[in-house]
Amino acid sequence: VNESEEALLQAIRRVLSEPSPNVVLGPGDDAAVLSAGSGDLLLTTDALVEDVHFSRRWITARELGAKAINVSVSDIAAMAGSPRAAVCALALPAELDAAWAMQLLGGMREACGEHGLALVGGNLAAGPCVQIVVTVLGEVAPGRAVPRSGARAGNRVVVTGDLGGSAAGLRLARGSGALDAEGREAVARHLRPRARVGEGAILARHGATAMIDVSDGLAVDLTRVCDAAGVGVRLRLADVPLGPAAEIADALAGGEDYELVATMPDDGAVDAARAELRETFGVPLTAIGEIVDEGRSVIDAAGLERPLEPAGWDHFA
Amino acid sequence: VNESEEALLQAIRRVLSEPSPNVVLGPGDDAAVLSAGSGDLLLTTDALVEDVHFSRRWITARELGAKAINVSVSDIAAMAGSPRAAVCALALPAELDAAWAMQLLGGMREACGEHGLALVGGNLAAGPCVQIVVTVLGEVAPGRAVPRSGARAGNRVVVTGDLGGSAAGLRLARGSGALDAEGREAVARHLRPRARVGEGAILARHGATAMIDVSDGLAVDLTRVCDAAGVGVRLRLADVPLGPAAEIADALAGGEDYELVATMPDDGAVDAARAELRETFGVPLTAIGEIVDEGRSVIDAAGLERPLEPAGWDHFA
Repeated sequence: VNESEEALLQAIRRVLSEPSPNVVLGPGDDAAVLSAGSGDLLLTTDALVEDVHFSRRWITARELGAKAINVSVSDIAAMAGSPRAAVCALALPAELDAAWAMQLLGGMREACGEHGLALVGGNLAAGPCVQIVVTVLGEVAPGRAVPRSGARAGNRVVVTGDLGGSAAGLRLARGSGALDAEGREAVARHLRPRARVGEGAILARHGATAMIDVSDGLAVDLTRVCDAAGVGVRLRLADVPLGPAAEIADALAGGEDYELVATMPDDGAVDAARAELRETFGVPLTAIGEIVDEGRSVIDAAGLERPLEPAGWDHFA
Repeated sequence: VNESEEALLQAIRRVLSEPSPNVVLGPGDDAAVLSAGSGDLLLTTDALVEDVHFSRRWITARELGAKAINVSVSDIAAMAGSPRAAVCALALPAELDAAWAMQLLGGMREACGEHGLALVGGNLAAGPCVQIVVTVLGEVAPGRAVPRSGARAGNRVVVTGDLGGSAAGLRLARGSGALDAEGREAVARHLRPRARVGEGAILARHGATAMIDVSDGLAVDLTRVCDAAGVGVRLRLADVPLGPAAEIADALAGGEDYELVATMPDDGAVDAARAELRETFGVPLTAIGEIVDEGRSVIDAAGLERPLEPAGWDHFA
């Protein structure tokens, strides 16, 4: 970075200096100080590594900052919680322009503002590539966090929004062709995801037994829900809502959609949650399968049943 | 890493599966769930980047894991808080041995055990080098966090333990010469620092007005305390306690000692804190200067006064 660390830290602190309720002491000390809430606390951390999760060639600093916040907030949403505060550890190459780093922070602050959480601290280090680790502290009413492990046979599997648009968008962003409106929408899904915080709370209120955000692809994330509860699933491929420019493989194995997959006790709960989600956020909720006692399978468009392959993103494959 | 991500994650979860009080839901879900405490919350994040902060040639995986925890816990100690839970974001090169990663986690868990905090979650990603970001959630009695900004003219400046040993140890670890007992002790200071959690609480109880951990060198960290309060300092170099194999420059500009520097209201408070620290932890407390209205200076061994240069570690210099 073409400024001294202390100068960049001071600039960052100016960006982050907005006072916030419940924040006793914000950035610039050894640790941030927050007043205690009354709920259970949620803690989650996530990383975006350059040339693994993103390329600076196709995402702007502002988009990347906002995405880093949303990716971590999405994990709070998947527990049915509310995000309260975030800290960020940044590693930046020495040759990076300081303006780029400031825009990254600006994008983070903007996303924090949209979700009503405070960016209360961070760490800055040199590194061989841009790496952003955002840790979010959230809150949920005592005993009300929705874990992955609560799915039971007979539960309906639902998903918010649509899937696969992010993977399709990444493919299009990497290519060199001109984009039509659908292509641009797909690219936006990849570059500017938005965590489903209010949606997670609504699903929980209507009795969601398990919930997860779709970060690694529906097949892998659904398999995690099944593994956590020791149950099976039958997924109806024809019912999976596809995002712009997406094919079913993008939904199953693409990842980074940051939609919520939940298991609901019955059709009545699904209908009630769907109505409230549509009314409150204009977000669709789609039933895509059932939890069964054992076996993980998909029913394809021709009605044939075959195994659900948990193929998604593996960092070390 | 020579295992699939899912296999490594499962192995990590087995390492981390110890139940812990106040942890409602540990690793393996979207976020960890902790029961709320009654104090203020503290949140801090810190990164160790390979070939910036460490080299795998001179630190073992177990030492590195323990150091990553201690470095972040030290920031909680510097607020006079207690660490409760940690999450860790790991980036690992694809060629890394999985056994090394497991030893890293083992070192983390051991250090968490020593400080009584729970390792409740993490994230695993591929990256060009090993990078470890540990975020710690801590707690402190409401209103009792000790910030950097409370120093007032007339306050005594004190430091726990001794300084410069870590920098001397790094120099020795990088060299190829045989080490005597003092050299080995210096290397240990660098490789196996221990956060001063109980010590920070004692200093706070005896009225510490400001506190910081010495991570970037006494000169820089003391300048931060002065900047935060708009005050000056006179530092007596002859009184700075030097660690094994250390020279005064190692103490001033070396960093990574993770001792606590505090400002105390008067000599009586210093004496009382010193007695309790010696009795409880066998740790010395040394008065090394005074806070003044303005100007930052050092008094050298010959009694000459010269400016305190805030020269320490700058990642981008």
